[in-house]
Amino acid sequence: MSPSRIDASIPNVQTAALVTEFGGKVQFKADYPVPIPGNNEVLAKILYTGVCQSADQYRLSDLDTKLGTAMNADGTPVTKIKFPHVGGHEGIARIVALGPGCGDDIVIGGLVGIRFASRICRRCEFCLAGKEQHCIKSTNHLHHEDGSFQEYIALDADYLTILPDDIDPAVAGPILCAGLTAYKAVMNTKLKTGDWLVVVGAGGGLGHLAVQYGKAVGAQVIGIDGGTEKEDFIKSIGAQEYIDFKTSKNMVEDVVNIANGGAQGVIVAVGSSRAFSQAADMLRVGGTLSCVGIPAGKVFIETPVASIVIKGLHITGNLVGSLKECLEALELVKRGIVKPKITVRPFKDLENVYEEMEKGQISGRVVLKVAND
Amino acid sequence: MSPSRIDASIPNVQTAALVTEFGGKVQFKADYPVPIPGNNEVLAKILYTGVCQSADQYRLSDLDTKLGTAMNADGTPVTKIKFPHVGGHEGIARIVALGPGCGDDIVIGGLVGIRFASRICRRCEFCLAGKEQHCIKSTNHLHHEDGSFQEYIALDADYLTILPDDIDPAVAGPILCAGLTAYKAVMNTKLKTGDWLVVVGAGGGLGHLAVQYGKAVGAQVIGIDGGTEKEDFIKSIGAQEYIDFKTSKNMVEDVVNIANGGAQGVIVAVGSSRAFSQAADMLRVGGTLSCVGIPAGKVFIETPVASIVIKGLHITGNLVGSLKECLEALELVKRGIVKPKITVRPFKDLENVYEEMEKGQISGRVVLKVAND
Amino acid sequence: MSPSRIDASIPNVQTAALVTEFGGKVQFKADYPVPIPGNNEVLAKILYTGVCQSADQYRLSDLDTKLGTAMNADGTPVTKIKFPHVGGHEGIARIVALGPGCGDDIVIGGLVGIRFASRICRRCEFCLAGKEQHCIKSTNHLHHEDGSFQEYIALDADYLTILPDDIDPAVAGPILCAGLTAYKAVMNTKLKTGDWLVVVGAGGGLGHLAVQYGKAVGAQVIGIDGGTEKEDFIKSIGAQEYIDFKTSKNMVEDVVNIANGGAQGVIVAVGSSRAFSQAADMLRVGGTLSCVGIPAGKVFIETPVASIVIKGLHITGNLVGSLKECLEALELVKRGIVKPKITVRPFKDLENVYEEMEKGQISGRVVLKVAND
Amino acid sequence: MSPSRIDASIPNVQTAALVTEFGGKVQFKADYPVPIPGNNEVLAKILYTGVCQSADQYRLSDLDTKLGTAMNADGTPVTKIKFPHVGGHEGIARIVALGPGCGDDIVIGGLVGIRFASRICRRCEFCLAGKEQHCIKSTNHLHHEDGSFQEYIALDADYLTILPDDIDPAVAGPILCAGLTAYKAVMNTKLKTGDWLVVVGAGGGLGHLAVQYGKAVGAQVIGIDGGTEKEDFIKSIGAQEYIDFKTSKNMVEDVVNIANGGAQGVIVAVGSSRAFSQAADMLRVGGTLSCVGIPAGKVFIETPVASIVIKGLHITGNLVGSLKECLEALELVKRGIVKPKITVRPFKDLENVYEEMEKGQISGRVVLKVAND
Repeated sequence: MSPSRIDASIPNVQTAALVTEFGGKVQFKADYPVPIPGNNEVLAKILYTGVCQSADQYRLSDLDTKLGTAMNADGTPVTKIKFPHVGGHEGIARIVALGPGCGDDIVIGGLVGIRFASRICRRCEFCLAGKEQHCIKSTNHLHHEDGSFQEYIALDADYLTILPDDIDPAVAGPILCAGLTAYKAVMNTKLKTGDWLVVVGAGGGLGHLAVQYGKAVGAQVIGIDGGTEKEDFIKSIGAQEYIDFKTSKNMVEDVVNIANGGAQGVIVAVGSSRAFSQAADMLRVGGTLSCVGIPAGKVFIETPVASIVIKGLHITGNLVGSLKECLEALELVKRGIVKPKITVRPFKDLENVYEEMEKGQISGRVVLKVAND
Repeated sequence: MSPSRIDASIPNVQTAALVTEFGGKVQFKADYPVPIPGNNEVLAKILYTGVCQSADQYRLSDLDTKLGTAMNADGTPVTKIKFPHVGGHEGIARIVALGPGCGDDIVIGGLVGIRFASRICRRCEFCLAGKEQHCIKSTNHLHHEDGSFQEYIALDADYLTILPDDIDPAVAGPILCAGLTAYKAVMNTKLKTGDWLVVVGAGGGLGHLAVQYGKAVGAQVIGIDGGTEKEDFIKSIGAQEYIDFKTSKNMVEDVVNIANGGAQGVIVAVGSSRAFSQAADMLRVGGTLSCVGIPAGKVFIETPVASIVIKGLHITGNLVGSLKECLEALELVKRGIVKPKITVRPFKDLENVYEEMEKGQISGRVVLKVAND
Repeated sequence: MSPSRIDASIPNVQTAALVTEFGGKVQFKADYPVPIPGNNEVLAKILYTGVCQSADQYRLSDLDTKLGTAMNADGTPVTKIKFPHVGGHEGIARIVALGPGCGDDIVIGGLVGIRFASRICRRCEFCLAGKEQHCIKSTNHLHHEDGSFQEYIALDADYLTILPDDIDPAVAGPILCAGLTAYKAVMNTKLKTGDWLVVVGAGGGLGHLAVQYGKAVGAQVIGIDGGTEKEDFIKSIGAQEYIDFKTSKNMVEDVVNIANGGAQGVIVAVGSSRAFSQAADMLRVGGTLSCVGIPAGKVFIETPVASIVIKGLHITGNLVGSLKECLEALELVKRGIVKPKITVRPFKDLENVYEEMEKGQISGRVVLKVAND
Repeated sequence: MSPSRIDASIPNVQTAALVTEFGGKVQFKADYPVPIPGNNEVLAKILYTGVCQSADQYRLSDLDTKLGTAMNADGTPVTKIKFPHVGGHEGIARIVALGPGCGDDIVIGGLVGIRFASRICRRCEFCLAGKEQHCIKSTNHLHHEDGSFQEYIALDADYLTILPDDIDPAVAGPILCAGLTAYKAVMNTKLKTGDWLVVVGAGGGLGHLAVQYGKAVGAQVIGIDGGTEKEDFIKSIGAQEYIDFKTSKNMVEDVVNIANGGAQGVIVAVGSSRAFSQAADMLRVGGTLSCVGIPAGKVFIETPVASIVIKGLHITGNLVGSLKECLEALELVKRGIVKPKITVRPFKDLENVYEEMEKGQISGRVVLKVAND
């Protein structure tokens, strides 16, 4: 690249949060190299990043158990990952330099996102269909490339998550993974206005977004979670009804009664087997169970074939979504229809955040302040 | 009703095949009463009837095991059935008398079908949506009313399966249940022309119809079954490829290779748990598993949540379908696009047919000749 | 029917609003017979009725022009209508007597609606598909049977618009025709949450409901109408943007600018040719023009084939909708999501209402109080 | 680019068919420069090219009339085109050299197609949705870049129409524009197996492909064209019924009779206003009119709003389709399901072909042999 295009103010080294082995703790390294944007790449400075549950899997995991369950977009198992590992795939950054060959519409100063997927092939049937999250040759910021737990990142200009200028960068981060996943899960239920949607784990990082996206399509939302504090929160973001799993005698009956025969959609945003197996009974004839997230261990959909057949149920699922769907999910945040609940904390808190996450102490979504704008 | 409307040639008694207790053998009774058509009912003389696997469940079953798994259309369990039980829900009959109040478009001499559902409420959301097979107040010819294993039957004129005059009555019977189920299972896969469809159990009563309906929507069909005789048959009805489960080293790999990455649809037409759990691996990203039939015992969809989520799979199922879908399935038979493989046998063979069915000796579909036209 | 089932309190005669010839004025007749409910019919007392623009067509019209354009549900022309004509197809009534054979779920005291369609065949492909508004043998309260401009009416118990008990009967009336039409027009646009919807004639009887149903599916609504009073009203019911046709220099440009390239949906709720021809230019690539109402005279969709082809547009339309869709539209009113703007006036005002309607003096929807509850 | 990557056997100049002004005749130029593939481009040698009606528009046209109707993908008018103009957008070529930066999966010797669209932005909502034929910044081989009426062409490696190795290159050409358009028009009708499809102009270059794609989705096709020779041809490619516009007394009635109430889909593949206006009357309630091609002059859809509203019709249209849809259309040709009727002629016949085309003397599709393989 032409050196003249890199501003002198961009340093050669930066601070990055590394994990050097499976199960290792986060180490902050102050002299990690700043990447140089190649052909058709941009260099972006990371302002904020969400911390996603799945981002820490290689910090916590051992090779045998974790590589066994991690999967590529086409369902084949992941067999190796890059070390040192720089996690983070909910990053919001500002373009600070352009590599050669970037189109005229890519400008310095523009806001961009760092999502799970980093590069796609543009040729496979999924890329051509606008379902490029399933690209069979895609790379991502979890297994193949450094993510948003660093100050600078190089991004493919042809698969760039270009954000609206007027979006709040702190709030936007969690939409890139959790929000997109919640948005698409809601779309997958194909609810029409007035239909009932159950969100299991409605107060969680992903669940509270599913409640709001459900509301945005006109659904009547039943939130399931535990405790009165959660109840207040979940109702404040638009759920019509709340079921407390700690006190309900029979959650299936509760749903069937509220929804007058069963819900048209159920989104299970917790990794519990039991939640998946109950979901079918909460559904009305013809209803849809929308699965999100990958439960730890090998969790099966424990739905009797007879239920599926007799009630004509639909079961589907998604991990993130396409770039187009991401932009749609962001637009609803920009318009104030969906409001992620975030706590902004310093970049250096990452290890603490992981530890709190493991203990289930995180409410909503943590966003780290990475570099100054 | 006005007696003048019943032709003198219609007898007061008829021959019917009864089962008088759970697990009892079929008894032919020669003096079973001929029903008198009530308000808005027709009396029809049964010419042929298919013998469906599920039709014999009360003959073979004991109360505890069977009533436990049988379900109503809305998924609630069936708690009692009518005894003596007259099975049969693939009947083809000719209207011989009209009760009062039948519309002018119902005429003596017309061909009608006896299907699983006998009466519907016309008010519930499913009736209003044209998905009346899920009517929450429906009655059927298995649990509530006598079916087609008798010479005469009274049918609701407002929910009448009116057949085209020029359809072959012997061939049409199996379409009313097995064919409709296969047709709808194919429609549920939402395949587009050129997509790959796997039919597991492709040579069976339901499977061989799924192969043909799959072909009718333009799919490329991979049939799975056992033996070279089945291979010849399955290819003769239009399957492009055949996988022999007796000799294949890895059926999943075979499908993935043939379909260049996996099939867009899989229909499991056998009651084996293993078949259901393999199906997800046979599917391409975004593909659909269409379940039909109710396996004996409590069979679960053993699909890992991770597969559904990462590959964005769809799982759905159906038991029969609507009257409209039944007429569509029949139309393809009338046009010669779909050809059920049937063996016509005498009415009195029913008990033998059941026994052969239990032993797995039936190939294709048996149709009994009931009364003379 | 058994006379004992008719309560002594029900009179033999009633007041009805008659039109006795094409172009005739409304005449109130105090001794019009109260119908006796036949087999499977209910007798209902009419509490309120909306006055729909199309209801007065036979009062105003002459045979030549009007019978020429009126069409049956299957698109064939209406060739004669019943005289004396009792109009009204937005009626809300209470069941006061049951004819023989009504199901147990039909009870005296229940609220029911009088809609455009009165009876359906239940056999044609449209009835079977839950699109019975297109039934090829249907009858209606405009051409074949007396409508809701009378105190008592007999209704088919098997095609009954059963209302929720807790709905406001005055407000519900206009939903049965105008509201249903607006609801279905919105559903026909297939908008997803966040999409832009233009409603042309947003302050009118039908338009103001389309604005609200559009909002209920998550659309961002651009209302088009004239004047600042309309602006205040249209924004108060949820439109995001307003375009005043009296002051706008270029409405197409306005829409394209607001919607950042064009709207995903346009509903034309006025009978102007120009509005239809402009609509295509307001649409984004792939957008949908949803036509409602039948313009007076022969109005054509004046859209160049080239626009449709190059922009991949969709044009569709609807007159009312199905019973199921009507109940869905009502549910949103019951929940307070959609609020029809109505003015309640005495039954005897009908002729005045017609005259004001012709002069364009009616704002929102007039509802007549017919009989006391 | 590295010169070593261009084979010495590739000449510097080539023969190209030029049009130098609006309305000018084709001139063959033997020393037109061979383009040098830039970054991420391939150089391909053109083996065959179809001659599409629209390809000659600048040869025949004068600026005023033609630039007025030509439109970009987003519906805005084309205001200038490149001269000298090298037409052709149904080309089949073999890759002979690679510019820098092409992915490893692009190989010399591979077959590729030259379609209407040449480059896309990859960022707009249409590119992201896999509907990149509507890309608002796209360029094409008609207005902006030289097309396939030359021996060598440079193509964007990231938007390459990669063909299966075993497809017949002579036959494949017309699929890239006419075939894709016909395929997508059929898909747009959303027919299900057994539905009736009318193709107006069934024997033409586009129509005969629509007949076959219609058949491939299971439709029953009614072909409309003129003469018994056309009848034989149209029936030989799968149409069930034929209507001769030269002898039919009432084509609308004929369709309604054959299709028992009207067709579910109509594709108008001729540029006649009358054909478009008749189409609505040929449709059944809920049916779809699928428009293709851009009629000369400003042709309007002359459908009464009342028909659309009362019959709930759908009108849509398409010009070509996406790359993914193109590959699907080609796959059906590769499998022998769809067989384009072509006549192969020498490259130098182009001017003659244009003249015969103007006189309506071309039957099926002409394919020119351009360079030797």
